[in-house]
Amino acid sequence: MVPKAAKYALGLDFGTNSVRVLVVDIANGNEVGTSIFDYPSGTAGILLDIKDANLARQNPADWTLGIEVAVPEALAEAKKKVKGFDPINVIGIGVDTTGSTPLPVDRSGKPLALYKEFKKNLNAQAWLWKDHTGHAEAAEITALAAAGHPEYLAKCGGTYSSEWFWSKILHCLRADPKVAAAAFSWVECADYIPGLLTGITEPLKMKRSRCAAGHKAMFNAKWGGLPAKAFLAKLDPRLGELRDRLYDKTYTSDVAAGGLTKDWAKTLGLRPGIAVAVGAFDAHLGGVGSGVEPGRFVKIIGTSTCDICVWPAAKKLPDVPGLCGIVDGSVLPGCLGLEAGQSAVGDIFNWFVNVIEPGGPKKGSHAALTRKAAALEPGASGLLALDWLNGNRTVLVDQRLTGLLVGLTLHTRPEEIYRALIEATAFGALTIIRRFDEYGVKIRDVVNCGGIAEKNPLVMQIYADVTGLEMKVARSAQTCALGAAMAGAVAAGRRGNGHATFAEAQAAMGGIRRTVHRPDAARHKIYLELYDLYRELHDAFGTKSWGGSLFNVMKELLAIKDRQRR
Amino acid sequence: MVPKAAKYALGLDFGTNSVRVLVVDIANGNEVGTSIFDYPSGTAGILLDIKDANLARQNPADWTLGIEVAVPEALAEAKKKVKGFDPINVIGIGVDTTGSTPLPVDRSGKPLALYKEFKKNLNAQAWLWKDHTGHAEAAEITALAAAGHPEYLAKCGGTYSSEWFWSKILHCLRADPKVAAAAFSWVECADYIPGLLTGITEPLKMKRSRCAAGHKAMFNAKWGGLPAKAFLAKLDPRLGELRDRLYDKTYTSDVAAGGLTKDWAKTLGLRPGIAVAVGAFDAHLGGVGSGVEPGRFVKIIGTSTCDICVWPAAKKLPDVPGLCGIVDGSVLPGCLGLEAGQSAVGDIFNWFVNVIEPGGPKKGSHAALTRKAAALEPGASGLLALDWLNGNRTVLVDQRLTGLLVGLTLHTRPEEIYRALIEATAFGALTIIRRFDEYGVKIRDVVNCGGIAEKNPLVMQIYADVTGLEMKVARSAQTCALGAAMAGAVAAGRRGNGHATFAEAQAAMGGIRRTVHRPDAARHKIYLELYDLYRELHDAFGTKSWGGSLFNVMKELLAIKDRQRR
Repeated sequence: MVPKAAKYALGLDFGTNSVRVLVVDIANGNEVGTSIFDYPSGTAGILLDIKDANLARQNPADWTLGIEVAVPEALAEAKKKVKGFDPINVIGIGVDTTGSTPLPVDRSGKPLALYKEFKKNLNAQAWLWKDHTGHAEAAEITALAAAGHPEYLAKCGGTYSSEWFWSKILHCLRADPKVAAAAFSWVECADYIPGLLTGITEPLKMKRSRCAAGHKAMFNAKWGGLPAKAFLAKLDPRLGELRDRLYDKTYTSDVAAGGLTKDWAKTLGLRPGIAVAVGAFDAHLGGVGSGVEPGRFVKIIGTSTCDICVWPAAKKLPDVPGLCGIVDGSVLPGCLGLEAGQSAVGDIFNWFVNVIEPGGPKKGSHAALTRKAAALEPGASGLLALDWLNGNRTVLVDQRLTGLLVGLTLHTRPEEIYRALIEATAFGALTIIRRFDEYGVKIRDVVNCGGIAEKNPLVMQIYADVTGLEMKVARSAQTCALGAAMAGAVAAGRRGNGHATFAEAQAAMGGIRRTVHRPDAARHKIYLELYDLYRELHDAFGTKSWGGSLFNVMKELLAIKDRQRR
Repeated sequence: MVPKAAKYALGLDFGTNSVRVLVVDIANGNEVGTSIFDYPSGTAGILLDIKDANLARQNPADWTLGIEVAVPEALAEAKKKVKGFDPINVIGIGVDTTGSTPLPVDRSGKPLALYKEFKKNLNAQAWLWKDHTGHAEAAEITALAAAGHPEYLAKCGGTYSSEWFWSKILHCLRADPKVAAAAFSWVECADYIPGLLTGITEPLKMKRSRCAAGHKAMFNAKWGGLPAKAFLAKLDPRLGELRDRLYDKTYTSDVAAGGLTKDWAKTLGLRPGIAVAVGAFDAHLGGVGSGVEPGRFVKIIGTSTCDICVWPAAKKLPDVPGLCGIVDGSVLPGCLGLEAGQSAVGDIFNWFVNVIEPGGPKKGSHAALTRKAAALEPGASGLLALDWLNGNRTVLVDQRLTGLLVGLTLHTRPEEIYRALIEATAFGALTIIRRFDEYGVKIRDVVNCGGIAEKNPLVMQIYADVTGLEMKVARSAQTCALGAAMAGAVAAGRRGNGHATFAEAQAAMGGIRRTVHRPDAARHKIYLELYDLYRELHDAFGTKSWGGSLFNVMKELLAIKDRQRR
């Protein structure tokens, strides 16, 4: 009997600075080929404006170039690594991207940025997720929604962000009417890439991402899709008109956006017509790639942390206050996707190591500090920190909050501060998990992914000891791209030699590393005592309503800071 | 006409690690000779016990040796520097010492430590100011006084310290009955040295220091001197008995304890019979040396800061809560001496530079950080700190409080933290000055002395900008020894070719440096805003009574820390 040839799926992971391609064996999750393409435009792929620190754009041509270069490279590696590997056995492609990263397109779906007249116009490029030029518009949208449509805000933590879809478009309408007028529609990067690969680029025909729409554009079936035309028109009549040129239907990533075009198939050396899944955001497919399922909490730990979990859509779930987003199907079809996060995690440790540099670059390295911090007992330093050095994304939803360190003495050592900072991020994580729990979302175990999860067992052990939960680590080092590949395999479906469901794909392609970090009961007990104190600080400095509020201390410091820096 | 020969006074400054001798021209304050003698015993002059970190003792023989070596050296330097200098023109000697540093003596006033049988017994040595072995006894004394004699505590900030006279003796009574029984009496170092030099060593005959007695032994004319016999006997019957072998009269430092003995005159090359002033504590004579007078606040800034000011005894002054001590004549005769302080100042900056070492030893030096911190505007970092890294000595009187830093972001730079720490000590200083002010003690200007005052104009400018007061710097780099020399000149009196009063001595021998740091109105305004926020943190973390108290956070962190370090 001739053995059946192995089948593969591609995961395309469009990040802030580069695109990564992963070739995955859909039977066992073996990652047989990979390639990274650094975006050539701007500074590390980001178009900046020296006059406006809030501005961050991306050149959509970089994405196309990235696909053209990185896919063949990844396939070439697979050929080298796997005897008899043939790209003909790639059965599907999945796409994950940053977001909200919308770009203006014409009637055919072609980005304005690709036209000569707009090539150098920053407003015609993709508005990268971290662009904050629309902060005034975000406040305006929040205020208007709070007044007339509180339901719009209920699913996104009570505040509409400057990083999101409508803030950006509204800002463009006001800042650059020419671009705004030339834009027939706007598409998310997560919509644009599958459109590009399938040739279905027309804004009204392409299959839009549920994940992007639900999290960033206040799309919800409850109120008939996007926010009401009247609401948008009140912000700007042109925004109301734009609504008709956007979408009223969205799709989950188990659905194929279409088939790979002949041209692309030729360019990439793949079979034409293979399934290209509807796109989604990186963290959400990272959750899929890490094996998310009801009761499991996925932490994608990087410079910041994104938390993903799911809840069966058939079961009732109240709005969870302070959560960034609850969107039906954003992670898995048939499930509410729940997204939370911490604005800074690795960035806090990096700040201490790279900016404070205690003892100099050598003595103050992550490795040296981790070694010394590992020898300390919980609570023995007398230190306690608030992990808000980049604000608080979930529960308090306040980007302007700042970090705090208490318990300092003349004997306080750098490794004690380092450990206190790690513990603070663990207390932040526990605060999110408890908020889920309070609203009925019980967490059984936690799967972590990202560099810190893989390389720093001290962080994982502290997380286990603080939360009292087992900390597992995803087997793949590229869970976002792996999740995208799973989407590709599921979009292909059984008929296309792929998987029938995400559950099937996860079972076959996913996995957990052998080492599990289990909570130590004695340490957990101490940490719960410390957590009570963390909560006192958290509530005092983070909430206006706290009696004898110190909330004002943080906010008034910022007001003075703003004035003095002007 | 033969010019009248210049007259000189010696200042003997007995510190923690060494004794310093200063030869001063009483007409103009010229410091013509100086010498430092490092105590040879123990670790940098401190006898330690590896089994008890609270223990810190001193060998009284080191003091004698120090006088024998350093006085001739200082005189020799004067001879070299001043043509025609003759020790015969030294007309008086003043003495300042650490305190409370009591030692057990026999009936003749000879220290038990000098007897062979007690030579190696740490309890027979001088109990250095920083010895905390009597912490349990201090709590006992505080409790008993609070219950029956609140007036005893009213003048010492509400809490009797383990660093003070009775705590130490009571601890000795319990820990070493043999030493306690052999001790006919106990004398402060400030009493012992003048006794030694004048030969009036008998405990009941020597002239005891008002400063030492009033600040550390709860001596006050209001209740007939030392605490009541019944009170002491309740603590321990032997302590009640000891009271009869102590003193019922004390003296200010304008009074001569006696004349220099023939033997000492010979040993030191001085005239026999010259006045030796009654001793006082270093900070108090440092205040005198810095020109303290009503309305002037003297800050002796070192690793910690001691604040000294005076108030005419004839004018009514209420008890100032949170002040370490208010003692009639402890600084100037006819004035109440008011002592306050900050538990850590230079030590905080040293901690950041030497323990945290931001950027390594070079980038994180005081000079480098000061240079960068000087370029910052008040409030521009968004940081605010509490200066309690070694507790809070004045106003809160709580040694267990800890430091805090709020406003941290991923962009926070080491020099911003350094400046915030300097500002925190300035806010701490302002809190003390305001407490004085609230009780009627108006401050007109501030004279600073100590290394930081002399060498770091940024610190002085920040102090001026925060307090809104002019910061002056004492001319002398040795204000304690200079103050002691003034005492020597005043004790000699007009008849002994010295000065009639301290005011006269200060006018002749003291002085202020030319550079005065004047507050900048705009910066002062910002700092007052920041100070309001400092006070919110101060009250929240420092006082139990604050609504929604965070006081518990600091204290519970310490409770956990103590448990986890055991």
